[in-house]
Amino acid sequence: MSFAPSSDAAAQALHERYRQVRAHTLALAAPLSAEDQCIQSMPDASPTKWHLAHTTWFFETVLLQRHAPGYVLRDERLHYLFNSYYEALGPRHPRPLRGLITRPGLDEVMAFRQHVDAAVEQLLQHADDALLAQITPIIELGLNHEQQHQELLLTDILHAFSCNPLLPAYLVKRQPVTSAPLRWLAQPGGVVDIGMPADSGQFCFDNETPRHQVLLQPYAIANRLVTCGEFAAFIADGGYQRADLWLSDGWATVRAQDWRHPAYWLAPDDPRRPFQQRDDLPADRWWVFGLDGVQALQADAPVAQLSFYEAAAYAAWADARLPTEFEWEAACNAAGITQWDDQVWQWTRSSYDPYPRFEPLEGIAAEYNGKFMVSQVVLRGGSVATPAGHTRPTYRNFFPPAARWQFSGVRLARDL
Amino acid sequence: MSFAPSSDAAAQALHERYRQVRAHTLALAAPLSAEDQCIQSMPDASPTKWHLAHTTWFFETVLLQRHAPGYVLRDERLHYLFNSYYEALGPRHPRPLRGLITRPGLDEVMAFRQHVDAAVEQLLQHADDALLAQITPIIELGLNHEQQHQELLLTDILHAFSCNPLLPAYLVKRQPVTSAPLRWLAQPGGVVDIGMPADSGQFCFDNETPRHQVLLQPYAIANRLVTCGEFAAFIADGGYQRADLWLSDGWATVRAQDWRHPAYWLAPDDPRRPFQQRDDLPADRWWVFGLDGVQALQADAPVAQLSFYEAAAYAAWADARLPTEFEWEAACNAAGITQWDDQVWQWTRSSYDPYPRFEPLEGIAAEYNGKFMVSQVVLRGGSVATPAGHTRPTYRNFFPPAARWQFSGVRLARDL
Amino acid sequence: MSFAPSSDAAAQALHERYRQVRAHTLALAAPLSAEDQCIQSMPDASPTKWHLAHTTWFFETVLLQRHAPGYVLRDERLHYLFNSYYEALGPRHPRPLRGLITRPGLDEVMAFRQHVDAAVEQLLQHADDALLAQITPIIELGLNHEQQHQELLLTDILHAFSCNPLLPAYLVKRQPVTSAPLRWLAQPGGVVDIGMPADSGQFCFDNETPRHQVLLQPYAIANRLVTCGEFAAFIADGGYQRADLWLSDGWATVRAQDWRHPAYWLAPDDPRRPFQQRDDLPADRWWVFGLDGVQALQADAPVAQLSFYEAAAYAAWADARLPTEFEWEAACNAAGITQWDDQVWQWTRSSYDPYPRFEPLEGIAAEYNGKFMVSQVVLRGGSVATPAGHTRPTYRNFFPPAARWQFSGVRLARDL
Amino acid sequence: MSFAPSSDAAAQALHERYRQVRAHTLALAAPLSAEDQCIQSMPDASPTKWHLAHTTWFFETVLLQRHAPGYVLRDERLHYLFNSYYEALGPRHPRPLRGLITRPGLDEVMAFRQHVDAAVEQLLQHADDALLAQITPIIELGLNHEQQHQELLLTDILHAFSCNPLLPAYLVKRQPVTSAPLRWLAQPGGVVDIGMPADSGQFCFDNETPRHQVLLQPYAIANRLVTCGEFAAFIADGGYQRADLWLSDGWATVRAQDWRHPAYWLAPDDPRRPFQQRDDLPADRWWVFGLDGVQALQADAPVAQLSFYEAAAYAAWADARLPTEFEWEAACNAAGITQWDDQVWQWTRSSYDPYPRFEPLEGIAAEYNGKFMVSQVVLRGGSVATPAGHTRPTYRNFFPPAARWQFSGVRLARDL
Repeated sequence: MSFAPSSDAAAQALHERYRQVRAHTLALAAPLSAEDQCIQSMPDASPTKWHLAHTTWFFETVLLQRHAPGYVLRDERLHYLFNSYYEALGPRHPRPLRGLITRPGLDEVMAFRQHVDAAVEQLLQHADDALLAQITPIIELGLNHEQQHQELLLTDILHAFSCNPLLPAYLVKRQPVTSAPLRWLAQPGGVVDIGMPADSGQFCFDNETPRHQVLLQPYAIANRLVTCGEFAAFIADGGYQRADLWLSDGWATVRAQDWRHPAYWLAPDDPRRPFQQRDDLPADRWWVFGLDGVQALQADAPVAQLSFYEAAAYAAWADARLPTEFEWEAACNAAGITQWDDQVWQWTRSSYDPYPRFEPLEGIAAEYNGKFMVSQVVLRGGSVATPAGHTRPTYRNFFPPAARWQFSGVRLARDL
Repeated sequence: MSFAPSSDAAAQALHERYRQVRAHTLALAAPLSAEDQCIQSMPDASPTKWHLAHTTWFFETVLLQRHAPGYVLRDERLHYLFNSYYEALGPRHPRPLRGLITRPGLDEVMAFRQHVDAAVEQLLQHADDALLAQITPIIELGLNHEQQHQELLLTDILHAFSCNPLLPAYLVKRQPVTSAPLRWLAQPGGVVDIGMPADSGQFCFDNETPRHQVLLQPYAIANRLVTCGEFAAFIADGGYQRADLWLSDGWATVRAQDWRHPAYWLAPDDPRRPFQQRDDLPADRWWVFGLDGVQALQADAPVAQLSFYEAAAYAAWADARLPTEFEWEAACNAAGITQWDDQVWQWTRSSYDPYPRFEPLEGIAAEYNGKFMVSQVVLRGGSVATPAGHTRPTYRNFFPPAARWQFSGVRLARDL
Repeated sequence: MSFAPSSDAAAQALHERYRQVRAHTLALAAPLSAEDQCIQSMPDASPTKWHLAHTTWFFETVLLQRHAPGYVLRDERLHYLFNSYYEALGPRHPRPLRGLITRPGLDEVMAFRQHVDAAVEQLLQHADDALLAQITPIIELGLNHEQQHQELLLTDILHAFSCNPLLPAYLVKRQPVTSAPLRWLAQPGGVVDIGMPADSGQFCFDNETPRHQVLLQPYAIANRLVTCGEFAAFIADGGYQRADLWLSDGWATVRAQDWRHPAYWLAPDDPRRPFQQRDDLPADRWWVFGLDGVQALQADAPVAQLSFYEAAAYAAWADARLPTEFEWEAACNAAGITQWDDQVWQWTRSSYDPYPRFEPLEGIAAEYNGKFMVSQVVLRGGSVATPAGHTRPTYRNFFPPAARWQFSGVRLARDL
Repeated sequence: MSFAPSSDAAAQALHERYRQVRAHTLALAAPLSAEDQCIQSMPDASPTKWHLAHTTWFFETVLLQRHAPGYVLRDERLHYLFNSYYEALGPRHPRPLRGLITRPGLDEVMAFRQHVDAAVEQLLQHADDALLAQITPIIELGLNHEQQHQELLLTDILHAFSCNPLLPAYLVKRQPVTSAPLRWLAQPGGVVDIGMPADSGQFCFDNETPRHQVLLQPYAIANRLVTCGEFAAFIADGGYQRADLWLSDGWATVRAQDWRHPAYWLAPDDPRRPFQQRDDLPADRWWVFGLDGVQALQADAPVAQLSFYEAAAYAAWADARLPTEFEWEAACNAAGITQWDDQVWQWTRSSYDPYPRFEPLEGIAAEYNGKFMVSQVVLRGGSVATPAGHTRPTYRNFFPPAARWQFSGVRLARDL
């Protein structure tokens, strides 16, 4: 057997990273009871327990089952229960029924995580260079996959809590956010490179490739995100009553679902706002539900949990527009840009189409991104719920235009 | 303080009964995890935790709040969350969202039960004769109400488990049931008394009153319930494919929902049947899901979890009919009758209409029964899930004709 | 050929009746354009053209195909298109799509009617006594069936017109109705005979048989129907906002569909009320849409197009109740009763259950009534839309409790 | 009054074009009965009569009401009934109820057309140069609008007929189509100009502007459309059963709606195929419903009435892809291209997003295109149903990806 100190170090580093990401998931679930972790508040959301199990299932299925010699499946039933949407991996539990899986219980799911974590540790300890080279990108994909679910875990429990009339808080109060004055940053346009280079050595998803050139017109982009205070002015000016500001589908949704404000805002007279703070505040103050429960609206905080429809209507009202995803990417590291990835994802005016010469990944990861490329809109950036180090300027997030349970907001752009 | 030995004894007896009924509810919940107790599998079902809290809410609202001097509500929020359908008691949490209430948690609901139980004990210890006379019927109503929810707790968790592809068992295997040969018991008809007499001294619900006379033709009634073996013969004879056997709404339901057998039956090749028993049994054996999980069909056991539509179609196929609720009541203590209240409720051929001169109870209990008297069908008897002592020959249970998650079956009748 | 004067006369009389009933159908359709006759405004309603064709299909299928020697079907396709709900007669065009059958056109349907009428005439001219005895009840059933569709033709076109914002009128203004003062007519109850005697010699449907005895308590019944003026007082008193007046299903419907008044009433400020009459009337005057278009509410006219839910809520508000169908039948010819069959059908407090020893008709008519005996409520009487001579005291009409497009109203009753 | 011969000629030419376009609409409606013209078979389709009236409403509202001195509205009610989706023009009749408007009848709608045509003729005869310059683009927009509805009139009546089990034919049999062998035409890519130049002097819609540059990679495009024969091979190869070929939304639709072949194809054993031709054809022959009724599948004819989902799945199966709308436009006049606008519209792999610096038209035409720019997919080309002269290489048609009642098909592309 050959002496391979460098790969030992690589394996150790990879395992350390594995442990950190996996531990972060548990830390996110820690404030939640077994009951909290079991429920599903709408078909598009998933229970915390399901996120815990599904990310583990991913490692078991894609890594251990295919690459760990002699690995035996922990439990056949988990394969069925915790597949998400991989058609190639056989039938699966219907998505809207995820909240009914009380058994296996949370303790069994935790044991499943430990079992898989131990097997991954074993695998990394005994992998030779060839195997390590083979499994490193798989583990890296699994960790990025888990980080995506870390954000979803938060958006989904927030939605679940929003359906409870008591509007419980997930955590104690966050620090207030301050915003700089709005400035328009001129961008030259021209031929720009978009997407991740093939030889970057950096992890990315297949939908960010291949890197290619796009021709842009000159434009200006806002130095910061749209704030809650600005959005309140839009509402006060009748923004939710003026059809001319909205896309047709957006307006139909406003009417059908009686939208009057962002999904997690509470009107000044909403009976669910907290008693103790009512008297200290002006009678026309909006309230905002978030991870820290119901708080009085902070004028400087970025508006969040917006749908694309609301984002586009606001931009029309503000005599501006949303940037395309290419404009966003070309500008995201420009001088003066703030809040690009630490507050809310930013809706772009780009539908989620494949890049030229896009090829999905091989194998089961083929279903990771490409098959969703229709009827969705691209968001760029990152949010308070995005794990540290997970995002990058080329990252393409996407949701349907009516989705309003994500940490999603607005950065404006204009023609020059 | 006056000497009042007789009412002391009465109060103690009442309290003893209170404690037994309340303890039975907890015993029913004991095999379930906090996760199990939180979920709701369809709008018509409720979480176990909700049953635990709602029955307690009933005592707090109807008894303590109105009759216990100085009683302070445990928690304002519980009033909103755990009202079921009492319009007179203000707004309430929407029924289909009951499964999203992870907070208050199960521990808080348990504490709520203890709090109310202690207050009821206090009330009974200090009640004078006048107060005791006033609150005794209220407590009796509350206990019967709780017993109804004891049965619903079982039917609802059984439904929830039926949505889990693992089909978990609520309890260990029950004893097998044996059935006598089918015999037809001739009944003379004529003018019979129906309903509970006003002066019986026995508890009953308002819908069982007033006692009145009904004129019946001679008829025959089956000595026992229809069995699973008999129902399997109906299926084998194409019962679910023959429109002529079904009521029009029933047939439409069969087609729209692709009914092929009772809701909790598993076809002989269903992948969810237990591995270990597959090889021991004939290949055409049906399987039945119940409180004891999935078991091979017992030919002699009464068929259960039937809708009225299925009950009526079976009766038509068997060249018989369902008894009216009056025929059932007149015959239920006749010589030779078995299984009248210990296996499954029995669908009758009577819509749930008010008795002549029916008057709902006064006060908030006015909403207990009367307002449901349309589009429902009467069931008579009792079931394995009915608490001991809860039912009686005049008891009128009712469900919509498509309901198939109750312990509901068939007793046949014929014209003579 | 034998001399058979008596049956000739009988055949001629039957043919005369046939011609009169069939001609009346055409007279009802005459004010309608081909476009009017083609459309279907909801799944429960049918196009006029469909009524014209289906009643003809009934004679072709039940009479000619089985009893007219050598009769050849006019067109195979009509069999599929114009069957209503007879499962025994094979597959049929889905009910909700009836309004899409523009071809065959109205002219072809009219030709179909003439073809069948000619064949029936031939059949009657050449029938011998035996055949005549055999087909007379079939023709009588077909004519009563057609009369039922005559009423439905009117209720259905009225619903279709109610969906047109122009609210067109089917006919010119009717005569105003006057109502007597309300009086309560005491009825003794006791054992009464219900249903049509077997040997009456009169036509009836199977659901009116067999005649049997029912035991009634003493009661009082209103001499006339509830008027629009009285119903307006119910509305003004908050009738549609008071949960306590409504059955549970009714209240859920009120809330879900935002009911505020009868379906065909227009609020005093409805923009669809006719311009020319607005200024002549008080500003709080309701308007009522009917066969004569939109007219100012007539206080004395019977309220119509009510659901059972509204009828029952009104009765509760008026400190009364609806009569059972047995009370209605026992009282309908009592001294002092008016408006029993010439204004609106009267909702009873009886679910539509089979009479004791009820047997459906033999053959395809078996599906005529019995299979609908669940989840429906009985109406008694007759309406302005019922053809002359079609109804009788034993007649049992039925609709689901939420139906509000029929000529259906309220006669009150009370316990004595 | 000034002498203005040149504008007289321009006015006459414009009027001649007006008359031709308007007459073509009537010619398309001519084979249809009043019944045919009244119905609406789904919310997305409209009755022929509605198309006749709405296109006329457009001229009355946008041209006559604003620019014809003294013009009086024909009928206030038409304004409400025949607005399509213009929010700025006030409330309108709900789209799904268009098929219930039997009154005004077809004759009244025809009279409305004549009234407006006469007023337009008057306007053009008396317009001075300034007015003519002002109204010419409005009339041109109105005529192009009417041409769009000419195509929709055909697609919508075809859908309506497809819901009739008799599958009637709109016209007599068309000429067979022949297809050339498939060839791949290499295209160089690079910077290409996309969209209509501002100074072209040619009519276009706002969504085709502004002309701008796009950077393309080299690619190949098919010389002709995918044929029915090729699509039958896709079906035979399990195309509708292989999840890996489909976008996620597409696969969900295939499963939910049980798609097995294009919407207007009839399986070889479909009972609705015509009797007379059954015996002459192979037992595995597909049938296709179209304007000429049901015909045996022509292997060389372009496949039509495809959704985007089906188009993309076919392309994946054929080891190809759909062209982007930019690739399509850059290639559509390349040597060797056939069938670009005379058979079916061609789905592209481009979501319907605004062009850079896109500005909607001023005034009420602002709602013409821009507000639909989300969740739709671009089609390019033209079809057998497109009026002569209506389309052009820059034309952007668009529909939701699940739409399958248009003349829509596939042209393949590949990376080079």
